[in-house]
Amino acid sequence: MTDMAGYVAKHFRWRVEDGIAVVTLDRPERKNPLTFDSYAELRDVFRALVYADDIKAVVFGSNGGNFCSGGDVHDIIGPLLDLDMKGLLRFTRMTGDLVKAMITCGKPIIAAVDGVCVGAGAIVAMASDIRLATAEAKTAFLFTRVGLAGCDMGACAILPRIIGQGRASELLYTGRTMSADEGERWGFYNRIVDAAALDAEAIALARRLAEGPNFGHMMTKTMLNQEWSMSIEQAIEAEAQAQAICMQTQDFKRAYDAFVAREKPAFKGD
Amino acid sequence: MTDMAGYVAKHFRWRVEDGIAVVTLDRPERKNPLTFDSYAELRDVFRALVYADDIKAVVFGSNGGNFCSGGDVHDIIGPLLDLDMKGLLRFTRMTGDLVKAMITCGKPIIAAVDGVCVGAGAIVAMASDIRLATAEAKTAFLFTRVGLAGCDMGACAILPRIIGQGRASELLYTGRTMSADEGERWGFYNRIVDAAALDAEAIALARRLAEGPNFGHMMTKTMLNQEWSMSIEQAIEAEAQAQAICMQTQDFKRAYDAFVAREKPAFKGD
Amino acid sequence: MTDMAGYVAKHFRWRVEDGIAVVTLDRPERKNPLTFDSYAELRDVFRALVYADDIKAVVFGSNGGNFCSGGDVHDIIGPLLDLDMKGLLRFTRMTGDLVKAMITCGKPIIAAVDGVCVGAGAIVAMASDIRLATAEAKTAFLFTRVGLAGCDMGACAILPRIIGQGRASELLYTGRTMSADEGERWGFYNRIVDAAALDAEAIALARRLAEGPNFGHMMTKTMLNQEWSMSIEQAIEAEAQAQAICMQTQDFKRAYDAFVAREKPAFKGD
Repeated sequence: MTDMAGYVAKHFRWRVEDGIAVVTLDRPERKNPLTFDSYAELRDVFRALVYADDIKAVVFGSNGGNFCSGGDVHDIIGPLLDLDMKGLLRFTRMTGDLVKAMITCGKPIIAAVDGVCVGAGAIVAMASDIRLATAEAKTAFLFTRVGLAGCDMGACAILPRIIGQGRASELLYTGRTMSADEGERWGFYNRIVDAAALDAEAIALARRLAEGPNFGHMMTKTMLNQEWSMSIEQAIEAEAQAQAICMQTQDFKRAYDAFVAREKPAFKGD
Repeated sequence: MTDMAGYVAKHFRWRVEDGIAVVTLDRPERKNPLTFDSYAELRDVFRALVYADDIKAVVFGSNGGNFCSGGDVHDIIGPLLDLDMKGLLRFTRMTGDLVKAMITCGKPIIAAVDGVCVGAGAIVAMASDIRLATAEAKTAFLFTRVGLAGCDMGACAILPRIIGQGRASELLYTGRTMSADEGERWGFYNRIVDAAALDAEAIALARRLAEGPNFGHMMTKTMLNQEWSMSIEQAIEAEAQAQAICMQTQDFKRAYDAFVAREKPAFKGD
Repeated sequence: MTDMAGYVAKHFRWRVEDGIAVVTLDRPERKNPLTFDSYAELRDVFRALVYADDIKAVVFGSNGGNFCSGGDVHDIIGPLLDLDMKGLLRFTRMTGDLVKAMITCGKPIIAAVDGVCVGAGAIVAMASDIRLATAEAKTAFLFTRVGLAGCDMGACAILPRIIGQGRASELLYTGRTMSADEGERWGFYNRIVDAAALDAEAIALARRLAEGPNFGHMMTKTMLNQEWSMSIEQAIEAEAQAQAICMQTQDFKRAYDAFVAREKPAFKGD
């Protein structure tokens, strides 16, 4: 699959406009829970995005005033109780694979969060690159509330890097709701916007990123992930190589030519 | 040792109530310095907690308006000047072992900080999972003031993950006091509470965690530590395994049954 | 080279006063861009500082109301377009080597940022240990604006550790300006000071650090770098060794003697 603009999603909503894919879950009457099917299809779509040149950025949006209520209690938690370890691990790896696919998809992902954003929903927001929220966003890593641990889909590694180890610990142990205001103060949310403007603001930001340089953005995303556990000196060498590669793109030349001509550069992603 | 409720501490105060251990140092007239003896006994107690099923959470509290004044100048710093390298390393490893024991004890630790919280005392607060403080808390990593480096008991690794590399650098180079307000703004303290309510608030939070899925909390704590230096992808696989283990606990089933019955789950830790 | 007080810089300004080196770029009419020559000389000077016992701390200051406008478009970006991969990598490694040299120079570096602080200039600020700024500081990691990736000179590894992964992602993808107020709120800037007082405040802080203990500061800096990608337990053992070494310095004894005599210690750096 190398073209995703025409993709027809079965288990969520997917539309593409000017190279920007907008994903939303589609059970607003239940605050958009995830199911086995939507997990699997999301994983496959984000994996396919690596090769999709026609998509430049992704918005993971809300629907009907809510982002995502997490794994459905009836559709997911109930059936899990009947699985053996092999089956359980197959499930937890599938959910982890969604996060891996989001992080390695090569396109910036902007989460646009309104209302309920809990459990696996909070993880999807966490695994995005940039997060906008409304004042009504209620974000909770509530795995502890269903008798589980806070270590779900990478939360114990990723959340501390976004909001700090102390705040992450409290959220993961207690499962309590982080308010939108806390989220902004702590660096989880990049900006709070009006509910009425949420989609437009997220798409405007995605559009700005989609205008490029897209090869550069892909490399930024790759290195933000890749350098995570490197030493400082390893990271600096890795960036010397990555940036040297980017210096061979036409977009670098376009930027220079535009600067000399006192124009705004028109990036093309190559 | 598998039961710690009846433990009788020699060099600090230790009491257990409803599965919550409350530790405080016990030289309030000198703002609760640490000594060779209290370091060693604290290390041993936190090591023993791994196997103590009767303790669900720990509060490390203040006494007489202060948390801890750090290593005692007369009892510790003086004698250190007479030690050779073998003896010095035995001491610095013992202090580091206290932090290791706190981090691997398997129970959430809540620091309740009032007044002076400096040197090794600031480290004990830092090595806890969640930190409450009063407005009077004065926290300083003041190793530099006694002619040493800021790298004490893990501070150069742990403090930056809690408050960020820039703020940690300033505190560790200068040894200056972080006010309670700064501590809250920066994510070192999770919440500021009234001095009169400090103990009650810390115990209430500990109680809430103690009611929790304790096996899950143990796994949360384990993974918050374990994933520290993993790559993102390694961390996600590690969590897939850890959470699959938690899905085999009875507490996971209890949560589901309670949800279906529209009741609050009663977790038992197995 | 073991004495840097008398060093005569060719491509920037360098003066030393009471063991404090003050560096500023010197093309204020163009907001102090970096050139191939100033990059290389800065790298060499920070490398030499490791062995320079006469320098205790460094201030990297502003000049004419600006810190640094980054790599010069005409002097650097233009020529890069004519280089092959070998030449590009030689350049990106040289710039990375400046950051490595700053991080391993063994002396605390205080950035004093006024006005424009963009591109490689923002990196120099980021690679410093402590950062002061005026309200007019405009900081931007604007590599994306010239068609490149945000992964330049270690930014994807270092910036997230200072301000968190979410805020760093936004700055690196968009290249937007971080205001001084945001910089302070997010932990990039340690303090905002009046423009008229910027140099004096930075030098006063450097003086305070220069008063010692300098061997301890060197070890703090070393370990803040060294422990970056260690596990918590590795970091604690590394600090046990590092601090035991510091306990053999005379400054540790001086601090104890001063404490006993109720005096302020006079550190000498040995």
